[in-house]
Amino acid sequence: MLFRQLFDQESSTYTYLIASQQTQFAILVDPVLEQVARDVKLLTELGLKLNFSLETHVHADHVTGTSKLRSLTNCHGVVPEKAQVQCADRQIKNGETLMIGEVSIKAIATPGHTDSHMTYLVGKDRLLTGDCLLIRGCGRTDFQSGDPGVLFDSITQKLFTFPDTTLVYPGHDYRGQTVSTIGEEKAFNPRLVNQTRESFINLMNNLNLPEPQKMSEAVPANRNCGNV
Amino acid sequence: MLFRQLFDQESSTYTYLIASQQTQFAILVDPVLEQVARDVKLLTELGLKLNFSLETHVHADHVTGTSKLRSLTNCHGVVPEKAQVQCADRQIKNGETLMIGEVSIKAIATPGHTDSHMTYLVGKDRLLTGDCLLIRGCGRTDFQSGDPGVLFDSITQKLFTFPDTTLVYPGHDYRGQTVSTIGEEKAFNPRLVNQTRESFINLMNNLNLPEPQKMSEAVPANRNCGNV
Repeated sequence: MLFRQLFDQESSTYTYLIASQQTQFAILVDPVLEQVARDVKLLTELGLKLNFSLETHVHADHVTGTSKLRSLTNCHGVVPEKAQVQCADRQIKNGETLMIGEVSIKAIATPGHTDSHMTYLVGKDRLLTGDCLLIRGCGRTDFQSGDPGVLFDSITQKLFTFPDTTLVYPGHDYRGQTVSTIGEEKAFNPRLVNQTRESFINLMNNLNLPEPQKMSEAVPANRNCGNV
Repeated sequence: MLFRQLFDQESSTYTYLIASQQTQFAILVDPVLEQVARDVKLLTELGLKLNFSLETHVHADHVTGTSKLRSLTNCHGVVPEKAQVQCADRQIKNGETLMIGEVSIKAIATPGHTDSHMTYLVGKDRLLTGDCLLIRGCGRTDFQSGDPGVLFDSITQKLFTFPDTTLVYPGHDYRGQTVSTIGEEKAFNPRLVNQTRESFINLMNNLNLPEPQKMSEAVPANRNCGNV
């Protein structure tokens, strides 16, 4: 398996390129519109054929590169089934697995940041956690159908049931961290350590965060597959 | 082996945390002063003991975290033998290997960006290439004892002799790329593909880059182990 983490500095977003080295088929998870040229160049250089552009959720902080990638590569845009993105080529359900050659990518419904958010298990030991579980943090829950109690359940009842050594690859990081593990997040995530469901809800409801700068542009664009 | 890539957004610098999971001994390569608190927190959380803070070279674009790390962790500061950093605890020579538990870190002299620059081979297949070989680029050669011909020789006669699958972890990236391979850089690095030594020298001597913003502060501070 080829596994590449790619970063967009403006939005601090991680995009993941995953490919089968047997078939040269590839998938991009959470591509960023402004980075499509970089990503397509890399696909070309590596001799990869992009099958899918896959979203963890409808992003509020950046516009997806899916539409542009579709026009450049003939890939299929895939979104979580409840994301209500009508222009997507395919919806993916909780428990469903995409195969990229020999590489499995299994969808795990982890709502809370949005009501349709998915985490993806790549192979046996890498979780692409999107904006559900971040490194020493978690996604916010104060807009776009967010719900802190539901997020708490997704993290503690789904993600935290994976082995401690499972790698956590988030959708963003703002402190230069690239990867963590389930064991580390159970032990050190300040949003979750020693929190009850009630105290977590209280914490999340009082973060008083500003709206993402691009939200008014990004959400409608992402509901339209990245066509701005 | 634990291997963590850490990023400093201001200077686009990668720091590498490498540790033995048998002995819990650790090393940081190219730490950044402003990120020491983050790095020490991570060491503490992971239960690691920092043995060494190791430099690829005397940086011109950021101040090393070594001095602060020494005071907080009792680690030893290690620099390339020709770097003329008198306050270092130890100098490392071409071909010398540091052991962190079972993990080997071998110094390979790769001058050209500076005259004392080292690349480090971690285990068998990861090269920390510092500012010698970057992803689709290379370090500049127009200050601090830089020499484009020497850099060309370091890349083509030393780094490009490793197997194509060897992973390249650079000291910086400005485009959100995290890792490459020797095979990719041989095939696609625009500074090197189809270049002769002479044309490379000509290319590097005509880049007309501005001086790094922090250079007047960083170089003297780094010659003093990061004491500003």
